[in-house]
Amino acid sequence: MRQPAHGGNLAWAAALAGCPPDAILDFSASISPLGPPNSAIAAIQSQIGNLKHYPDPNYSELRLALSHFHQLPSEWILPGNGSAELLTLVGRELAQLAATTLITPAFGDYYRTLAAYNAKVLECPLSLVIGDWSLVIDKGQRTKDKGLLLNNPHNPTGKLFSRDSILPYLEQFALVVVDEAFMDFVSPNEEQSLIPVVQEYANLVILRSLTKFYSLPGLRLGYAIAHPDCLAKWQLWRDPWPVNTLAAAAAIAALQDTEFQQQTWAWLPPARNQLFQGLAKIPGLQPQASAANFLLVESQESTSQLQQQLLKHHQILIRDCLSFKELGDRFFRVAVRSHSDNQRLLTALSGEWGVGSRGNGEGNEGAEGERGNFHSSPCPMPNAPCPLALSEVEGMPNDK
Amino acid sequence: MRQPAHGGNLAWAAALAGCPPDAILDFSASISPLGPPNSAIAAIQSQIGNLKHYPDPNYSELRLALSHFHQLPSEWILPGNGSAELLTLVGRELAQLAATTLITPAFGDYYRTLAAYNAKVLECPLSLVIGDWSLVIDKGQRTKDKGLLLNNPHNPTGKLFSRDSILPYLEQFALVVVDEAFMDFVSPNEEQSLIPVVQEYANLVILRSLTKFYSLPGLRLGYAIAHPDCLAKWQLWRDPWPVNTLAAAAAIAALQDTEFQQQTWAWLPPARNQLFQGLAKIPGLQPQASAANFLLVESQESTSQLQQQLLKHHQILIRDCLSFKELGDRFFRVAVRSHSDNQRLLTALSGEWGVGSRGNGEGNEGAEGERGNFHSSPCPMPNAPCPLALSEVEGMPNDK
Repeated sequence: MRQPAHGGNLAWAAALAGCPPDAILDFSASISPLGPPNSAIAAIQSQIGNLKHYPDPNYSELRLALSHFHQLPSEWILPGNGSAELLTLVGRELAQLAATTLITPAFGDYYRTLAAYNAKVLECPLSLVIGDWSLVIDKGQRTKDKGLLLNNPHNPTGKLFSRDSILPYLEQFALVVVDEAFMDFVSPNEEQSLIPVVQEYANLVILRSLTKFYSLPGLRLGYAIAHPDCLAKWQLWRDPWPVNTLAAAAAIAALQDTEFQQQTWAWLPPARNQLFQGLAKIPGLQPQASAANFLLVESQESTSQLQQQLLKHHQILIRDCLSFKELGDRFFRVAVRSHSDNQRLLTALSGEWGVGSRGNGEGNEGAEGERGNFHSSPCPMPNAPCPLALSEVEGMPNDK
Repeated sequence: MRQPAHGGNLAWAAALAGCPPDAILDFSASISPLGPPNSAIAAIQSQIGNLKHYPDPNYSELRLALSHFHQLPSEWILPGNGSAELLTLVGRELAQLAATTLITPAFGDYYRTLAAYNAKVLECPLSLVIGDWSLVIDKGQRTKDKGLLLNNPHNPTGKLFSRDSILPYLEQFALVVVDEAFMDFVSPNEEQSLIPVVQEYANLVILRSLTKFYSLPGLRLGYAIAHPDCLAKWQLWRDPWPVNTLAAAAAIAALQDTEFQQQTWAWLPPARNQLFQGLAKIPGLQPQASAANFLLVESQESTSQLQQQLLKHHQILIRDCLSFKELGDRFFRVAVRSHSDNQRLLTALSGEWGVGSRGNGEGNEGAEGERGNFHSSPCPMPNAPCPLALSEVEGMPNDK
């Protein structure tokens, strides 16, 4: 079986680990461990009887729910079979321009979709310096015959670009596509989505995913937000029923589930902090600060080797970064999961590294020992005081 | 709300009928009334807990099930988000040729996908003469720089082209695409699929749907069968996870459900015969013989007007043929449904026409009266004895 280019390939991992796929503890796919919300599952169950009908090709109810959620007219919203389907339409759109500036390291499927339509790609590398969240694009690349493609928060680094740092590029590029697949993990008072300004820019496309925050990647649901003319054109580029009935129903329920949303915003910062601090204590590992539900970790040892050891010895799957050529074998990415799952990863990593993490013993006291050392490690948010919980979000820099 | 270009748009119909969508009796979408099979529903239920994982991007289990079902290596099979998704990839493939010969009247989405990639279309009209099931393409259109796109059985006429009548075109066109979305409704001893010969032709693409036969159009599942090189290229043209987890599971279960398949082959011929005979008895209506689970009906009156009346007075939705420009307002299409549903349509049609169907009274005796007249009407299969049940399939012509 081929080495997967994406996270979450449990079939591949299970074959290597010699266990069933559901026995794998998956840190490779950046999916919330809190979901799916019961509301979405109930909506799925309630619609099984309707599978004998085609979905509404206008997806009127779903677009209305999204319209209420984002306070936007529904013509500005196009649901898709995961944001991945919409990314393919983006690739075709960008290929019509002279070139596309791609912020790198970039999600592998950006290259796939741009290559699928023979788009010319100009790579614009992000600083990998820890704490540097700036978005700087060479002046030569900023011309009105080019497109710009980036994600915010950035995958795999977890960097969050401020809205203000992206806005000037809307005047300098023919088309700006911002993949906000992880933006909903940032709490409402800190998020940097461009959705509030989309109606001011006919050359802005925003992609959103519902599968990561609501833990439904198997169901496939995302949406694009852009000028109605652009979305109407895309509708003719694809089939009439891309979104299945169950996904549409689950999305409507999930968008209204404010309790689940609040739980997620309350869970993430302390859980991410726990994982960050634990990783930072393991000699040879250096996690990067992140605004998303994953952490990029720099390693002094081969991470592909580490990945295999974790699978074989612990049935734990981490995301190697071989598909990100700027990162290669010295980085890996891990999702933030529950406290106990995070601890299981930390213990396994300490074991595989051949040295215990500082303050993490071999016995049952390990986890307690590590928690006791929380404040001795670098802070997971740049320029912010070291927090234990929600204050991490409050310290998030918006202008880097 | 716009007039829909496809069948099965219940949201549009319900708005016009002034009732909830599930109160509509839908004859417009050609979906089996027997399903979904319990096996598929059970498979869906069993996989809801796995929605928090991404689908296997190789769809290994699903392709293995399809491989067993069709006795083909799995590299020759590519699952899709409904055959509609795969049709879009077909459009891009065909657009690379000098032109595409399209058998007309053609499913509207064929024009959509060909236009989406600026393919040149050469229309090749089928004979609309009743009983003429021949496939004749002008010699001038048959050149090695062109593609051919047709469906078999043909939608909306229901004509079945024999395998032998298509095979010569594989030598005369650069690429032949046969959409076999309704082929599974034809019993195994009569079907004319090109799947058994696909490994002999690198320029043959076959599209199949699982949503019509198994009544799961809301779930989205189809597949393409073609040369592995072609399918590997298509895989790079689209996103990595087009098929949702529940659709993959339902498909595996449905393919193994031989009991459901047998039930469908036992149900269709007599039910189609009942509907055909009933329609033929209504003055001003002339149904066409069909090998599929729908009937095309020629009408002396406006069918768009009829469609609206049936919706408003009876909450019944038929498929007008306005989107088929060769047919226009003098044809409509109806799915074959259960005996009682078919009878409800016949009664409603008789009422709207202002004259009762011959032998169909106003009261409860109507249905009985009609069944008593089965043998007095034209036969639904050309060149075949008028059957009441399965013998209809046995009389199906294979070489027209």
